[in-house]
Amino acid sequence: MSRIAYVNGRYLPLRDAKVHVEDRGYQFGDGVYEVCEVRHGRLIDERRHLERLQRSLGELRIRLPMTLRALDVVFHEVVARNRITYGIVYLQITRGVARRDHAFPVVPVEPGIVVTARSLNKARNEALADKGIAVITVPDNRWGRVDIKTIGLLPNVLARQAAIEQGARDAWFVDHDGSVTEAASANAWIVTTAGTVVTRPADHAILRGITRTVLLDVIKAQGLKLEERAFTRKEAYAAREAFITSASQIVLPVVRIDDHAIGNGEPGALATALRRGFHRFAEVS
Amino acid sequence: MSRIAYVNGRYLPLRDAKVHVEDRGYQFGDGVYEVCEVRHGRLIDERRHLERLQRSLGELRIRLPMTLRALDVVFHEVVARNRITYGIVYLQITRGVARRDHAFPVVPVEPGIVVTARSLNKARNEALADKGIAVITVPDNRWGRVDIKTIGLLPNVLARQAAIEQGARDAWFVDHDGSVTEAASANAWIVTTAGTVVTRPADHAILRGITRTVLLDVIKAQGLKLEERAFTRKEAYAAREAFITSASQIVLPVVRIDDHAIGNGEPGALATALRRGFHRFAEVS
Repeated sequence: MSRIAYVNGRYLPLRDAKVHVEDRGYQFGDGVYEVCEVRHGRLIDERRHLERLQRSLGELRIRLPMTLRALDVVFHEVVARNRITYGIVYLQITRGVARRDHAFPVVPVEPGIVVTARSLNKARNEALADKGIAVITVPDNRWGRVDIKTIGLLPNVLARQAAIEQGARDAWFVDHDGSVTEAASANAWIVTTAGTVVTRPADHAILRGITRTVLLDVIKAQGLKLEERAFTRKEAYAAREAFITSASQIVLPVVRIDDHAIGNGEPGALATALRRGFHRFAEVS
Repeated sequence: MSRIAYVNGRYLPLRDAKVHVEDRGYQFGDGVYEVCEVRHGRLIDERRHLERLQRSLGELRIRLPMTLRALDVVFHEVVARNRITYGIVYLQITRGVARRDHAFPVVPVEPGIVVTARSLNKARNEALADKGIAVITVPDNRWGRVDIKTIGLLPNVLARQAAIEQGARDAWFVDHDGSVTEAASANAWIVTTAGTVVTRPADHAILRGITRTVLLDVIKAQGLKLEERAFTRKEAYAAREAFITSASQIVLPVVRIDDHAIGNGEPGALATALRRGFHRFAEVS
C-alpha cells in the first residue's frame, strides 16, 4: 500500500509529497516538529504533544496554520488512511515559503505543514527492549536552545551515526561539566545503586520529552525515589540501571554505556516495569 | 520573467521547484550550501566556493552528486537562464531522500541538489555601503561546528530578525569570553585606532568566508597592518572602523555597534577602499 501524506492542505501519495525549494524549513531549518505514538490505531498523549508544539511555535513566532481541532482531524485522518495500528505520526511546521533572506518575511506567509505516519515493527521493538541497547557518549556541541523542538537536527544525526558505527544504537550527549544532557532523540535516565531514579531537569539543555513528563507522573504515583538533577557520565557508568524515553520507544533499557556494562548487563527490573506500566498513565485520543 | 531553478537534474520554473518532504535537508537540516557573487554575468571566486563546498560535504560525508565541471556548467546555465548580470547564485546539497531516521541511510541515496540565482539591486547595495550599517551584538548560542556551511541556520535567522527589530541590519555573535565570532551571515572585522585590521582566525567558531580569504590577500598585498586574532565587543566599540564581508555584500562598512557609533559614525576610509579594490583580486569565471 502506498503511503499517504498531508502537505499544505492536501492528502497526497507520499511519492508526490513535496515542498517548495524556498520553504524556509529547507533553506534555514526554520521549523519545528512533533512525533506522536500510535497504538491500537489511537494517538498517545496527543494533547501534550500539541501543547509542546504550541510552545515551540511560540518561541520561533511561527503561527499555527490551523486550529488544534483541525490538526487533530488531520492526525487521525493520516493515521486512518495509512492504516496504522502501531507506529508514529510525524508533524512538521515551517515558517513557509519566501525569497531567501535570513530575517522573517516582511509580508507574513502561510506556514508550511506536513503530516506523515508509518507503522513500526512491534515485535522488533519488544525484542530490542528485551535485550536492551548500547549507547556511546559524545560531546554536546548543539546550540543553546534545544528545548525548542526544531528540525535543525544535524548534531543529532552525526551523534546517532557515530553510535551506529561504533556498534551502539544511540548516543548520549555530555556537556562541558561532564554531565549527561540527553540522547540524540530521547531523554536519558539512570537508576542509582540506592534505587533512586535520576533524570536531568528540563532546562534549555534538553527537550522536555512528553514520555519523560508522563513517566515522571508514573514514578511519583508509584512512590519511587526520584531526583530531577544533572548526573555525570561517571555516575551513569556506575548506575544499577539506565534507560531512554521517547514517543517512539517509550522506555528502552540501556545495558551498556561506552565500554561499561550497566548493572549486570541486562535490562533493569525497574526500566522494564516502567515500560510495561507506561500506557496505564498515558492519554489516548 | 519567471525565474528558473535547477532541481535534481532538471531546469524548472521556480514555482515548480520542489523537493520531497523526506529530503533530509527538510527533516534534519542535513545539508550544506554556497552563495557565489555574480558580476557582469560572471561568477566571482567560483573555484574557492567549490573548494569550500567539497570540504563541507566531506565533513558530513555527503557525496558530491556531479563532477565539479558539471556543477560549473549548471551554475553558468542557471545564471544565463535567469539573465543575471549582478546578483548571486545559490547552491544547496543535501544527503537525499530517505525514510526518516536520524542515522545516515543504510543504502546510500542520491544527494539532493538545488541551484537558484537572483539579481541584486546594485544601486541599493552601493547606497547601503555609502551610508554604512548598524549592527547589534547577540550571544553566540550556535552549535560547535559553524565552520561547516550547513543549512541549519535558525540561530542566524533569529539573530538577524532581532537586529531588524532593533533598527539594525545585522547581528554580531559574541562568545562566552566576550569575543566577537562573526556576523549572522558574514565575517566581522575592525580597524583599531592604530590602523591595524583585525579579524578572528578561522577556527571552528566561524565560517571561513571566501570574501574574507580574498580580502586577507588584498590586505597583505597592500602592506596594511593585519592581525588575525579574536577581538572583544568592547574593542569593537572603540574601533576606528568596522565592517563585514560576505559574497553578496563584499565589504560593507559598519557605522554603529549596539549604542556605539564607530569612528565618526561614517563608513571608514579603509573599508571603503577595500570594497572598491576588492574585485581586482577576485577570480572571475
